[in-house]
Amino acid sequence: MSIKAISSYQSLNEQTAKELAVNLNFFEEDADLTCCEIGDGNLNLVFRITENGKKGIIIKQALPYAKVVGESWPLTVDRARIEADALKLQEIHAPGLVPQVYHSDDLLAVTVMEDLSFLNILRAGLINGDPFPHLAEHIGTFLANTLYFTSDYALHPFKKKEYVKNFSNPELCKITEDLVFTDPFFNSETNDFEEELLPLLKEFWNDFSLKLEVAKLKKSFITESEALLHGDLHTGSIFADEKHTKVIDPEFAFYGPIGFDIGQFIANLTFQAITREDITRKEEILLIITDTWKVFSETFSKHWQESGDAYTKVRGYLEYVLNKAFQDSAGFSGCELIRRTAGLAHVEDLDGIEGKEKRLDAKRKSLSLGRELILNRHKLSSIEELTELIRNHSS
Amino acid sequence: MSIKAISSYQSLNEQTAKELAVNLNFFEEDADLTCCEIGDGNLNLVFRITENGKKGIIIKQALPYAKVVGESWPLTVDRARIEADALKLQEIHAPGLVPQVYHSDDLLAVTVMEDLSFLNILRAGLINGDPFPHLAEHIGTFLANTLYFTSDYALHPFKKKEYVKNFSNPELCKITEDLVFTDPFFNSETNDFEEELLPLLKEFWNDFSLKLEVAKLKKSFITESEALLHGDLHTGSIFADEKHTKVIDPEFAFYGPIGFDIGQFIANLTFQAITREDITRKEEILLIITDTWKVFSETFSKHWQESGDAYTKVRGYLEYVLNKAFQDSAGFSGCELIRRTAGLAHVEDLDGIEGKEKRLDAKRKSLSLGRELILNRHKLSSIEELTELIRNHSS
Repeated sequence: MSIKAISSYQSLNEQTAKELAVNLNFFEEDADLTCCEIGDGNLNLVFRITENGKKGIIIKQALPYAKVVGESWPLTVDRARIEADALKLQEIHAPGLVPQVYHSDDLLAVTVMEDLSFLNILRAGLINGDPFPHLAEHIGTFLANTLYFTSDYALHPFKKKEYVKNFSNPELCKITEDLVFTDPFFNSETNDFEEELLPLLKEFWNDFSLKLEVAKLKKSFITESEALLHGDLHTGSIFADEKHTKVIDPEFAFYGPIGFDIGQFIANLTFQAITREDITRKEEILLIITDTWKVFSETFSKHWQESGDAYTKVRGYLEYVLNKAFQDSAGFSGCELIRRTAGLAHVEDLDGIEGKEKRLDAKRKSLSLGRELILNRHKLSSIEELTELIRNHSS
Repeated sequence: MSIKAISSYQSLNEQTAKELAVNLNFFEEDADLTCCEIGDGNLNLVFRITENGKKGIIIKQALPYAKVVGESWPLTVDRARIEADALKLQEIHAPGLVPQVYHSDDLLAVTVMEDLSFLNILRAGLINGDPFPHLAEHIGTFLANTLYFTSDYALHPFKKKEYVKNFSNPELCKITEDLVFTDPFFNSETNDFEEELLPLLKEFWNDFSLKLEVAKLKKSFITESEALLHGDLHTGSIFADEKHTKVIDPEFAFYGPIGFDIGQFIANLTFQAITREDITRKEEILLIITDTWKVFSETFSKHWQESGDAYTKVRGYLEYVLNKAFQDSAGFSGCELIRRTAGLAHVEDLDGIEGKEKRLDAKRKSLSLGRELILNRHKLSSIEELTELIRNHSS
């Protein structure tokens, strides 16, 4: 029986993935196909199917559980629908900056999409020191377009509220609520850190001013439906090379505060600013951060002029919205810096540093800078002040 | 064919409403029933059915259109489902403070509920000078309970997000977005005001500081899913006497900012503070406002102690949440004061004043106080400061 005729969810293997690809007419029946599962197996299966080594297709399938560091818990596969819908909407608003979706099937929790394996994962490329001359322009544009065009400034209120419902994403949001906003700020079991960091973390856990500010940021994350976020915009969710940038994996997409995506992207670049020793190469990262914000805010402002909402013509309102997004970004980036250092999910930028003292030094800088960004976000009034803060904490 | 067997929506009349009541077993087949349509016919039909003059039942049915001041536009009847669901939830959290729902039918858009005609509409009672010694206690409790127990502080994140979807209410929210937050602040066709107010209104329409602050309040209304609101908590949505208080008509219910319900209630009391000439009777109103806030904040704080959310134990977070709700309330009450004076939907408190100069004076006070509350809400730090502002503007 062909996989196309299956009427309930079942997880694919390399053989059934190939059969599905043929049944969906991506290849001829007699094609000589190669299929490899290339995912990390924590949340999804990812099959790459090629014919005679030519550019092929990707079949991504959500698994009915999540596995992180050995632990496993049940999870519905509704995130596959959300991811496919988000990718389609992002392609409309930011064409060329996401993988193309060729087909999606909510029942099988499958998305068939463009094979991007000619590109590198941005995090690995940055660690390797590769140049990404178009990164700021591309991500700034991606952020401005996807966030503006899904906001109340662009959409009819009925359409916006339909999207809010469609992209309601309780399960994946809960992962962020716990792992980004809660656990790292308490002595939680999920935390994972080198023991030398314990004294500094104990300071955090006893710091009521810090926790109050994180409470406000978490409140913003769970209550403010400003725009459709990617929801997980770190440098591992981006494929890139010198010319191309493709944002992948929007399974955490939901309606949230505009500053969250921007903040996560800034934080994940900041790990590079912290770990790069050469001053020129450190400055390259700070320039990407600066330029991303500039492209974002200029492009968002340009779209704003086209809005049909009467209040967008009111003097000062655009500045208010951008300033809120900016200060929120700073706070959210602080949370990301801390959780990637002391929480459950780490980054190779830090964990990959070989010398122990050097690694601990970078981790301490991430933690302190994270606290600083959370506590003082409302004092920051320009991207230059933000990058100066990063510069001071990373030298 | 009996109305019970009908498989699609049709609007009731006094005869079919009686048949429905019998078919649903609220009365015997041979009961001697009286049925009167007592609604205002703008959005709903409201039938009161009694047997031999004894306490009966109310059948409320949503109409597939809205009619305001002669104009009519189509509207789905989904609000009947929202109203019935909201009433059931409010009865759980604030028992005795809403009419009991006996039956609801989403297809017919019908809610069968408790007959409250032994009570008076609060607005009429206040205009008449009736005493309402339990009003502050009851409404303060209603607000604290319904808002706290539907918030993220009380609910599991999955349940809360399910409610957010269930109570998505685009059509009714749009009425508020337009009539409360937009039209009165622009020279809009829907506005309705006595021509002598035009000079003051022109000031408002040209006041960019005022419009910027209203833009922020509207942004809060459309993006901040803090709790399940009643959504239309004016003194015409409350039945009361010396002992009882019943909040009716939550068809505007949706997830929004906590301060909105509080602000609308305060504003509608404020019309009485403005129009009452006797100082003692004016102070009675100010005391109701003060006590409502006190009961609300004390009860909300008591519930907060029971929260399972780790951040509710963080010093300063409750104060932050209450202060935000308070300042939001002040701003929202300012919008309500202005829109009920110059917008489409008016209040009898003002329009019922007979002498023209006296009426215009009260309306000018409403408008000025509204502006003041919107512009200076962030300077207010206690309910006493708020009532002092009302006192100064209403004398």
